[in-house]
Amino acid sequence: MSKTIQPLVWEGDSLKILDQRRLPAHERWITARGPEAVARAIETLAVRGAPVIGIAAAYGVALAAARNPDPRRIRAAIVRLARTRPTGFNLFFALRQMEEILDGGRDVPRRILKRALALHRDDARACRNMAAHGVKIMRPRERVLTYCNTGALATGGIGTALGIIKHGFRRGKVAEVFACETRPIGQGARLTTWECAAAGVPVTLICDNMAAALMQAGRVDRVLVGADRIARNGDASNKIGTLSLALLARAHKIPFHVVAPSSTFDRGLRFGAEIAIEQRAPDEIFAALPAVGRIPGLRFWNPAFDVTPGRLITSFITEAGVLRPPYSFKAGSVPIKP
Amino acid sequence: MSKTIQPLVWEGDSLKILDQRRLPAHERWITARGPEAVARAIETLAVRGAPVIGIAAAYGVALAAARNPDPRRIRAAIVRLARTRPTGFNLFFALRQMEEILDGGRDVPRRILKRALALHRDDARACRNMAAHGVKIMRPRERVLTYCNTGALATGGIGTALGIIKHGFRRGKVAEVFACETRPIGQGARLTTWECAAAGVPVTLICDNMAAALMQAGRVDRVLVGADRIARNGDASNKIGTLSLALLARAHKIPFHVVAPSSTFDRGLRFGAEIAIEQRAPDEIFAALPAVGRIPGLRFWNPAFDVTPGRLITSFITEAGVLRPPYSFKAGSVPIKP
Repeated sequence: MSKTIQPLVWEGDSLKILDQRRLPAHERWITARGPEAVARAIETLAVRGAPVIGIAAAYGVALAAARNPDPRRIRAAIVRLARTRPTGFNLFFALRQMEEILDGGRDVPRRILKRALALHRDDARACRNMAAHGVKIMRPRERVLTYCNTGALATGGIGTALGIIKHGFRRGKVAEVFACETRPIGQGARLTTWECAAAGVPVTLICDNMAAALMQAGRVDRVLVGADRIARNGDASNKIGTLSLALLARAHKIPFHVVAPSSTFDRGLRFGAEIAIEQRAPDEIFAALPAVGRIPGLRFWNPAFDVTPGRLITSFITEAGVLRPPYSFKAGSVPIKP
Repeated sequence: MSKTIQPLVWEGDSLKILDQRRLPAHERWITARGPEAVARAIETLAVRGAPVIGIAAAYGVALAAARNPDPRRIRAAIVRLARTRPTGFNLFFALRQMEEILDGGRDVPRRILKRALALHRDDARACRNMAAHGVKIMRPRERVLTYCNTGALATGGIGTALGIIKHGFRRGKVAEVFACETRPIGQGARLTTWECAAAGVPVTLICDNMAAALMQAGRVDRVLVGADRIARNGDASNKIGTLSLALLARAHKIPFHVVAPSSTFDRGLRFGAEIAIEQRAPDEIFAALPAVGRIPGLRFWNPAFDVTPGRLITSFITEAGVLRPPYSFKAGSVPIKP
């Protein structure tokens, strides 16, 4: 029943990227033969989701190294890829590993590619482990609300929050899923619904503004979301709208969990207020309503992420286990591979 | 600078209805010559907003009476118009007045039309009074968040919540407005932005899921919304998503006000749980994303309204003044004209 969804396919000398902007209407692939094409795919959201962005960037560096092993050229590719999107930490986690390879030793292109493939494999394993840990804390037949897309499309494996949901459905822990639309890009409406349908998970689409009424009606047992960057005090940035769900879950006494691999934890940040929030162009908002874009003087605010305070997060579900409050992640306390 | 916006124009033997579904791209008018055309305009949201729906329905009855003064035919028109939308109370408030005229006396068609015109005029006056009361409780240069459309398009006058905003802007009480998109129909994105621009009020459009981050950033001083039906304990139904804003405002200690004329207060209801919530067709949700509508097995939930508990409402602003908690509206305690 379940079909395998893969957002990235490494072809030996190129990277095939599933163009997620066209889903679910069209399954179109982009073939990236160099780092610039990968960078553009990340910037334009053809590939999105913090974990898979890190993996894509690593392959982008591998493409640069295969073309030209000159360390200056490889470093330029790393700098270019680091400029694509500011908020998600997995991108910088991956690029730092590429940089470390560059810093010494022989056979750099081969070692860079090996590391990129390992990052991809590691993320798939992390997804399986998050799913195993997440399912353990659930009761049978829960009704789960989720946000944005945190599935196979967003990771190197089955997903973070959506990975738990799909695994939990097979284990009888998930009865049904509510997918929030996730304006303005609609990752929930277009991608999470599509992944759930492919996995046979019963899924209901709601607009983002309906989550409160659904909770008030007693129809949500648990909220599971992903993250883009997590500070040491547990403040977590994620897709714009996540903060709203965390506050609504708290008001309705519903457990709210952030599911993320250790590559999302930024040991350099003390507080969420230090996280750089990407502002995107307003055309994302009025694309569906072009006449609105022509209203004279109309202003737009389009942050791609918000920051949920750690105090609103019931627990973090990582590949190493479930982390409960109080949150005070120190260097090394969260198992980030060097 | 400000241009007069009127959603309904009585033409003596027909009712011109501004088709709000086409705004702001097109200003197209529907000419209704009988009650059925008015009913269809209400059902399809060509005309929307609780106060103006009541006025439109009253004119619909006047059109029926002008065509055929047989009380059975007029009563059939009232029944038809009452079936259009279940949640907003102003519709039933207006139709009950029409029914009372029918119950006795001569010259019924003339008296029905007179009453319809009076309802229209009364609502315009109520709007002016709500604006005057609302502006009094505001400090200079506030930044106001609003929801859906509660302006001239939704009423017989300058509006309820948006009426206060436009009046407050001229008095220096409002510095800027944040309009939430209001999915799935986009009344905020299409109508409130358009009305604000026409009135010269600085307006920023946000997606519904961005309100929490805006409040967290300290950029909202007050939330002003409308209502569709208010129970005696202060529970208020309004456009889906209002409950979310009320909870977010409470979490951020931001005053949250419901602005509504007395024709919105249903003296027959004790609690908000007794309010019938209209469920609408899912195509409203996936209209902008037809491929989503074709995902096999995908379910939708599309309630048009939610209910905000009275305990989350800082005050009600009505044409008679500002009503503060505890709310216990008794028969006659809220000035509803018989």
